[in-house]
Amino acid sequence: MRTLEWDYATNELRMIDQRRLPGSLEIVTLHTHTEVAEAIRNMTVRGAPAIGAAAAFGLALAAQESNARDVAALFSDLETAAETMKSARPTAVNLAWAVDRVLKSVSVRLSASVSVDELSSSVLAEAQRIADEDVEVNKRMAAHGAMLINDGDTIIHHCNTGALAVVDWGTALGVIRLAHEQGKRVHVLVDETRPRLQGARLTAWELSQYGIPYEIITDGMAGHFLRTGQVQKVLFGADRIAANGDVANKIGTYMLALAAHDNNIPVYSVAPTSTIDLSLAHGGLIPIEKRDPGEVLDIEFQGERVTPQGAKARNPAFDITPARLISAIITENGIAYPPFEINLRKVVES
Amino acid sequence: MRTLEWDYATNELRMIDQRRLPGSLEIVTLHTHTEVAEAIRNMTVRGAPAIGAAAAFGLALAAQESNARDVAALFSDLETAAETMKSARPTAVNLAWAVDRVLKSVSVRLSASVSVDELSSSVLAEAQRIADEDVEVNKRMAAHGAMLINDGDTIIHHCNTGALAVVDWGTALGVIRLAHEQGKRVHVLVDETRPRLQGARLTAWELSQYGIPYEIITDGMAGHFLRTGQVQKVLFGADRIAANGDVANKIGTYMLALAAHDNNIPVYSVAPTSTIDLSLAHGGLIPIEKRDPGEVLDIEFQGERVTPQGAKARNPAFDITPARLISAIITENGIAYPPFEINLRKVVES
Repeated sequence: MRTLEWDYATNELRMIDQRRLPGSLEIVTLHTHTEVAEAIRNMTVRGAPAIGAAAAFGLALAAQESNARDVAALFSDLETAAETMKSARPTAVNLAWAVDRVLKSVSVRLSASVSVDELSSSVLAEAQRIADEDVEVNKRMAAHGAMLINDGDTIIHHCNTGALAVVDWGTALGVIRLAHEQGKRVHVLVDETRPRLQGARLTAWELSQYGIPYEIITDGMAGHFLRTGQVQKVLFGADRIAANGDVANKIGTYMLALAAHDNNIPVYSVAPTSTIDLSLAHGGLIPIEKRDPGEVLDIEFQGERVTPQGAKARNPAFDITPARLISAIITENGIAYPPFEINLRKVVES
Repeated sequence: MRTLEWDYATNELRMIDQRRLPGSLEIVTLHTHTEVAEAIRNMTVRGAPAIGAAAAFGLALAAQESNARDVAALFSDLETAAETMKSARPTAVNLAWAVDRVLKSVSVRLSASVSVDELSSSVLAEAQRIADEDVEVNKRMAAHGAMLINDGDTIIHHCNTGALAVVDWGTALGVIRLAHEQGKRVHVLVDETRPRLQGARLTAWELSQYGIPYEIITDGMAGHFLRTGQVQKVLFGADRIAANGDVANKIGTYMLALAAHDNNIPVYSVAPTSTIDLSLAHGGLIPIEKRDPGEVLDIEFQGERVTPQGAKARNPAFDITPARLISAIITENGIAYPPFEINLRKVVES
């Protein structure tokens, strides 16, 4: 199944609970938009494109929940639900992008003589289009990106950007997956991606499903492998890309990109154009989510609690990688190279 | 008590089992040099100066174990024991330095008319001198280093370099500790230091004992705090320093130093001159220990196993930080600034 899908028999949203993987593959069923917001917040669903699609379906649930008797009241309910879901996580712009796209598609029908039921149906239809397009967009990104991968490449990959991070297929991991399917021999060094370990949990699990050879490394090891000539490419996704090419992505990305740059290894960010936020001039304007310090503190090593009683922690979930460290940004509309101020706009508008 | 000490009542070596901290403070007692080698290998004792002192006491145990009836045979037994202990861990040069120092101090007495018992006693005496000098050396390093710390500094610290990493007091953490005792307000961002989490386990525990405010961060977060102007200094120890100033230290140090350098934040390596290996021209010649991949794989997050069944991992325990990223090296004989080729030799020979 897809990471998330609408169940047309029961009119519910079903999604893989990513917090349980790789230990168990559990499906959760959501009935309200507030459940969707909570699932985004607690990372039942994560990955910028996936939470965008989830929020779009969340609006479809909000339409079902609404008791509005006219389309204006329904639209007002949708707007309220949209704000709830947008506030679930601040950094990934795909969330706002998807919600705004659904609202806009609905708003243009408000003036026409549509019924409440018709408007409600059109919310679901637009959410489904976003989900279906996401799969298509991922395949196109992969086709562009796979051209950059050479037979025999060892690739460092950060966080999870596979099928689980999107509706299906994947962004950065989708590039690796297509290169593998094209017969190129690739080897992935999987950044475990502390604190939530999406690499060690989800990327490792996906790679094992695809039969792609990999080894898990701790995030601090990437520099060693880059410096000693064992790596040919660095790939990751993005949660938001500013107009100048600064990339907000999972915490740790900046240090990885810096180490690659220090050793002249190409750094590719793979993201759909819905991740590009031309309204922000640079990465300093992107809000960085701060999450529960418990995500840093609550780990065990070899069966024993690690941190002392009363320990405190900080937990910024994302960082900004300055554009000067990015070799190229791979989108569904093609590969943007520097100068990003010019070339990102081209891929967005093409 | 000290991290390790000789028990003169029972002629045994006692040390804190650092694998159990912070959960419990357990003391283990060692009776043979092979037990010492194993304690070094399995990291019951760790930290470059601490394993040097442990190995020196290991030779005292080897002298006790020996059935030699003349001093030449005893010395031969000591040489064999020395090789066993040196091979326990390859990267930290302090281990070989301490063992060689004991052998040398004993060898100069071979020609004199000493008894087997007298020679055996002199092994223990030299080991005790190494341990006592280590404490003294740490205090002198701290005095030099604390002058570089300003009131109000936030400092990122990697791995553990406190009292537990030495016989007593600490290297980089010793600098922070003295600055704190001098009344300077310091705040430490503690790199958790995957895979073995010496920061989250040992440094956090020590800082809480000293009453120094700290927060744990994952290793990949350091760059974010450095880029956003929240950090004034980066401090760590060293396991071996080459003649040109390249620093071998716990894995992750290179990426940390790189991120500091990218943001013009000073980077200080704090290490006794026994850590400086002038026989190696550059860091590429320093052997990097590869440890059990289980150290990467065997963690739990929020109570659940992280890595999928059958996952593989890589586990280099150290990396090389090139000298160009190091602002200064703080030793007991003073602070060495670039050019390190000249100034490291000066502090070693002073």
